Amino acid sequence: MNEAPLRLWRNAHIATLAGDPAASPWGALIERGALLARGEHIAWVGPEGELPRDIDVAEEHDLGGACLTPGLIDCHTHLVYAGSRAHEFELRLQGASYEAIARAGGGIRSTVAATRAADDETLFALTLPRARALMAEGVTSIEIKSGYGLSLTDEACCLRVARRVGEALGITVRTTCLAAHALPPEFEGRADDYIAAVVEWLPQLQAQGLVDAVDAFCERIAFTPAQTRRVFEAARGLGLPVKLHAEQLSDQGGAALAASFDALSCDHLEYLSAEGVAAMAAAGTVAVLLPGAFYFLRETKLPPIDALREAGVPIAIATDHNPGSSPTLSPLLMLNMACTLFRLTPAEALRGLTVNAARALGLQATHGTLEPGKRADLALWAVDHPRDLAYRFGGANPCRRVVSGGVDMELHS
Amino acid sequence: MNEAPLRLWRNAHIATLAGDPAASPWGALIERGALLARGEHIAWVGPEGELPRDIDVAEEHDLGGACLTPGLIDCHTHLVYAGSRAHEFELRLQGASYEAIARAGGGIRSTVAATRAADDETLFALTLPRARALMAEGVTSIEIKSGYGLSLTDEACCLRVARRVGEALGITVRTTCLAAHALPPEFEGRADDYIAAVVEWLPQLQAQGLVDAVDAFCERIAFTPAQTRRVFEAARGLGLPVKLHAEQLSDQGGAALAASFDALSCDHLEYLSAEGVAAMAAAGTVAVLLPGAFYFLRETKLPPIDALREAGVPIAIATDHNPGSSPTLSPLLMLNMACTLFRLTPAEALRGLTVNAARALGLQATHGTLEPGKRADLALWAVDHPRDLAYRFGGANPCRRVVSGGVDMELHS
Ligand SMILES: [Zn+2]
Ligand SMILES: [Zn+2]
Repeated sequence: MNEAPLRLWRNAHIATLAGDPAASPWGALIERGALLARGEHIAWVGPEGELPRDIDVAEEHDLGGACLTPGLIDCHTHLVYAGSRAHEFELRLQGASYEAIARAGGGIRSTVAATRAADDETLFALTLPRARALMAEGVTSIEIKSGYGLSLTDEACCLRVARRVGEALGITVRTTCLAAHALPPEFEGRADDYIAAVVEWLPQLQAQGLVDAVDAFCERIAFTPAQTRRVFEAARGLGLPVKLHAEQLSDQGGAALAASFDALSCDHLEYLSAEGVAAMAAAGTVAVLLPGAFYFLRETKLPPIDALREAGVPIAIATDHNPGSSPTLSPLLMLNMACTLFRLTPAEALRGLTVNAARALGLQATHGTLEPGKRADLALWAVDHPRDLAYRFGGANPCRRVVSGGVDMELHS
Repeated sequence: MNEAPLRLWRNAHIATLAGDPAASPWGALIERGALLARGEHIAWVGPEGELPRDIDVAEEHDLGGACLTPGLIDCHTHLVYAGSRAHEFELRLQGASYEAIARAGGGIRSTVAATRAADDETLFALTLPRARALMAEGVTSIEIKSGYGLSLTDEACCLRVARRVGEALGITVRTTCLAAHALPPEFEGRADDYIAAVVEWLPQLQAQGLVDAVDAFCERIAFTPAQTRRVFEAARGLGLPVKLHAEQLSDQGGAALAASFDALSCDHLEYLSAEGVAAMAAAGTVAVLLPGAFYFLRETKLPPIDALREAGVPIAIATDHNPGSSPTLSPLLMLNMACTLFRLTPAEALRGLTVNAARALGLQATHGTLEPGKRADLALWAVDHPRDLAYRFGGANPCRRVVSGGVDMELHS
């Protein structure tokens, strides 16, 4: 018998996000709802008038009619890095060419150099406030990719920092090894050799408990489908799930390749083909759309949203926080951008940051909806209706409280 | 002799925004700077090592190397209204037609109805947190337009609320009468009659001390150039400066018309012609660009930025906060959108929210730069360089302090 104390949140406008979205896009939408948690888990959720009797509540919170949703899940971030790319942003707007920026030390290699030069403590101190900023907008679970270390030591360092951030903040962090993100300078002209090295690193990183999933960047400017396949085969050999940066700038057939490895998700997908959609649907792979990068890079080609919907591919959205193409720490702005730029409905957008984001991380059994048995990860919002979260953009953060595993979190921003 | 106490802010990375932008786009950029204020005004600004000796400082703040800029000026907002348009946003994304939305009570008329139904207290209670949200991102001066009242009584009410917000918060508020915003239902089919009414209201509103400037919406879906001219003639007769919502959806020649009345600013300007640019340049009229509305309405036609630059038209940017086309309260997001969508440089964008915004309000003698004699309106930022403010977008508000007229403001968000 579970002896953990019962905690009650009541007088809330609850959106559970549970169940069939075709029947009810917000899940159950309960005007005057209540939620009970026993220890880390949700024990009961429903209309306040139907609260179970004879319960011994240790702690009770009157939420005054505010909205209660599942804690947000940012399922695609590159949160661990050193250095700034603000100067590069400015140079580009001043008309500098990409070559001039590279000469001035810009581009991904500048982030790799700065990250390699930083020690664990420095990277931790840089990453922690980024994760806190996400939490301040309702996030209770974050996927954090490596990919700016690009050596065994430096990738391990970044993944350790990611783990430590989760422990320090008391939230869920899933680590993804993205060693196949870019070619490090010491492997210039030897991409296959680099992939061979990555394949050797994976079991070592896994043995250190640092890898929840494996990702790669399959693109003309990154790695080929054949190189991606080698990484995925190594992951499969280790029993690790895979994800892929796919079809962002061109159609490489990456999504179909990833789906053939039962990928958790394919991410970006602006150039996704009909075959890619079908393969993802058949494999149950989630489409993670990244409107922040789409906006910041001024892309014009939209991901095939209608085709994804029709095929029943679950759509997630994420910040893609990274210094080069998506320097945002606002999941709420991503809600609005998913609606404004990608024409998702507010409910689809919120599903993209909750239930479908959980699935993109393989966490659908425990995270992403308000249902008995799932983790009591909650976000409380000073809005009248959950659609308001997607309507307004920027400024005036409406998040009032975040609960992770039944525990109230301290919010900084 | 001025006996007000001296206050000192030191150890700051100061961008003054003063002087010729061609020579120095940030104004003086002082790595380790200090600023002295006597009472409401700036007494001295410069490198800390050159601080005047033998001064009697009543209060000293070590800013720890943080950035100090002029307080931001949001020179175009529709901050006073009641009702929400979030449901309309959702309906549109669910595929509802404009007719269906109008039937469901959407559109500007729903905001007018809700605003008319609200009393002064309600409108004040709704507007105050919006102004506070702007302040929380560094704003110390706000232009607030009426335009959802559309009757003498209701316009007066909105303008009174605007004045009261400025007094309550201790910041600069400039009121603009935008009675010529839309045709109220009781004047359906009688736009000329409505304009005749507006022309009668103006002296009455002015007599109540409620009008700092007069604005109109010149567009196919709003008022004609001839109707706009009548409003402007009335304003000129009263000695009131004018502004114009011009060339947002089509080229009506509104900018040239406004320039012929020495308008303070023309705002939006996506469809501005070469003649319009020339007329604005000749009149010294500021171009106020509104990237939030451009983004939210998914416009594709850019304002003629290069032509404005070449002609020497000062460019300001603003939130255009309003419930229908720009529900944002983030001047910082507008900085990024001005860069990302309109390709302004970070310095141009910040000039747009400071020195050029001051000019768009006729406040250039007293606001918008850090120079001796100007108001001590300051914003303090936890960033390394002012360009960082434009680079990151959404989340993690870096504003640490706002000073209005030498006085530290309390920040809520
Ligand atoms: Zn990414
Ligand atoms: Zn406007």
